[in-house]
Amino acid sequence: MDIQELVKPNIRSLRAYHAEEVPCKVKLDANESPYSAISLGKNLQTLNRYPDPQATALRKLMVKGLKVKPENILHGNGSDELISYMITTFGGPVMYPVPTFSMYGIISQALDEKKIEIPLDKDFDIDIEKTITAIKKYRPKLIFLSSPNNPTGNCFSPDKIKTLIEKSQGLVVIDEAYGSFSGKTLVPWLKKYDNLVILKTLSKVGLAAMRTGFLIGAPHLINELDKIRLPYNINSLSQVAAGFYLDHMDLFSEQTQELIKSREELFNALQKIEGIKPSPSKANFIFFSCDFDTDSVYRGLIQEGVLIKNLNSPGVLRNCMRVTVGTREENEEFLKALKKVLFK
Amino acid sequence: MDIQELVKPNIRSLRAYHAEEVPCKVKLDANESPYSAISLGKNLQTLNRYPDPQATALRKLMVKGLKVKPENILHGNGSDELISYMITTFGGPVMYPVPTFSMYGIISQALDEKKIEIPLDKDFDIDIEKTITAIKKYRPKLIFLSSPNNPTGNCFSPDKIKTLIEKSQGLVVIDEAYGSFSGKTLVPWLKKYDNLVILKTLSKVGLAAMRTGFLIGAPHLINELDKIRLPYNINSLSQVAAGFYLDHMDLFSEQTQELIKSREELFNALQKIEGIKPSPSKANFIFFSCDFDTDSVYRGLIQEGVLIKNLNSPGVLRNCMRVTVGTREENEEFLKALKKVLFK
Repeated sequence: MDIQELVKPNIRSLRAYHAEEVPCKVKLDANESPYSAISLGKNLQTLNRYPDPQATALRKLMVKGLKVKPENILHGNGSDELISYMITTFGGPVMYPVPTFSMYGIISQALDEKKIEIPLDKDFDIDIEKTITAIKKYRPKLIFLSSPNNPTGNCFSPDKIKTLIEKSQGLVVIDEAYGSFSGKTLVPWLKKYDNLVILKTLSKVGLAAMRTGFLIGAPHLINELDKIRLPYNINSLSQVAAGFYLDHMDLFSEQTQELIKSREELFNALQKIEGIKPSPSKANFIFFSCDFDTDSVYRGLIQEGVLIKNLNSPGVLRNCMRVTVGTREENEEFLKALKKVLFK
Repeated sequence: MDIQELVKPNIRSLRAYHAEEVPCKVKLDANESPYSAISLGKNLQTLNRYPDPQATALRKLMVKGLKVKPENILHGNGSDELISYMITTFGGPVMYPVPTFSMYGIISQALDEKKIEIPLDKDFDIDIEKTITAIKKYRPKLIFLSSPNNPTGNCFSPDKIKTLIEKSQGLVVIDEAYGSFSGKTLVPWLKKYDNLVILKTLSKVGLAAMRTGFLIGAPHLINELDKIRLPYNINSLSQVAAGFYLDHMDLFSEQTQELIKSREELFNALQKIEGIKPSPSKANFIFFSCDFDTDSVYRGLIQEGVLIKNLNSPGVLRNCMRVTVGTREENEEFLKALKKVLFK
């Protein structure tokens, strides 16, 4: 596939803005203040200096265990920014199944690109026939697939994803924001498919405060996106904190394993509550539908000091909710509060 | 002026995505990790939680001394992001004088909006006749004026800015990134002109690492921009660090006063060097033209361990350079190196 052909003409003629990175003792090129108010250790340049625009150290850590190179990585101020860069660079139509992560639609509209929404099937999997028909009709430039899907929690069938990648004449973006909790990744597929792009984030695995996402794709695709990346999009402290995380991934993956166990316990407990139908989850949350009005369940839970996501809206999400897997104690508190609200 | 009328139709029908901020003991709504790996003091929520999407505490500090309210403030991941939000929301044509900050043009092109560049006059001030003619011809949605202007260092004449605001049927954005070093601000004009918007940043006054910009404008304008703001655009550490800065502004403004003094000393020293013509500056840098080939001056300076900005390009910037005002010691090193490179 000729990625260059897919790029919007206005972007094709742009050149990436590369802030100069010449190591010099006296640095008077970037209109920074010379006074460093605070310094936070040797890994962090002082706060008066701009961040590393290429996030070189961070990108080197990001590839760990993924069998890709730093040239395959674009760093973003959260996945949100990377979604926005994809849509800015390639334009629409933008296709995605629904229900899914809301930012695909919001950002498409903000950037004035057509969006095509295809309902998931009754198992919350891709409706392959409808999607293929729509691909033929609309020829989407971008297809976004959140897998595990937010808010339904399931992974889409790999065979269906493969079919979409092969049928699409545009790019297919697999958003693996919740990938750590499924234990699966499509990163190895990047070798086979040059129209595949994968998004990852550190927000779900313990570093939401830092806003650090990354996109994995072919180097010539990364180069196109890099043209429109704002030069200093990840600040210095995030680069350091995210680097710390990636350097200690083993510790954090123990926490992930713990959450996966808690998820199964929470699922079993929810299944035992009359009128609650939880969906099996490969993410760090559980989607469930209720035989109750979730607007009042939501308000009742808040009164008990428990905040979960109320998804209630007309259609397939009628009386549906989503609860994040917390610590065992938090899950217990949630279950107790839920039973109290439902059956008091 | 009807700001709503100016907004692109696709944005008009969008609603701001507001992440829920319900204070609850057990927070299981946002798919964060429940495990806080690191906590950095009481002002910082733990790193596993998302940042405050509204940056409420930060916006309260940002208004200090400006006689505007938090509703007048939109926070950005650097001014770059706010420039991008303005162009996304209002579209083009986008007009600006040249030479100026390169991101106005780069972001306009990235977002596929027409850009109109009007050369500055021989004193680097706004060419008012040419600009008014162009306003009538192109009816720009946005006019960007960097004042003090980067890279020329001067403030534009307030009378000319006033004329542009009054003649424009679109918005006029005054980028006061370097405003602390001029001691002037057009913020008081916001009361009079509803098509005026002002950009500020903490990047030049000691906090470049943090990427924190803010936009000041009418609340209904802020509301429109807020629709397309990525929900968690400023991370938690930046919110805390920027808050620290704003809370201790007095200390930092002593540094600014120090830099203003050094700037004048540096200007005088440059003026004494044969073949160097520095321009008077109201910023934290000095623009100068050379009777020498600046490509080789630039390389020579790097060999001496001094990095400044080489602006050399065909036209008005032929053999021009820009040097940031450093500490007195850095300025001395720069001057010594420059003399060595020029006259060795």
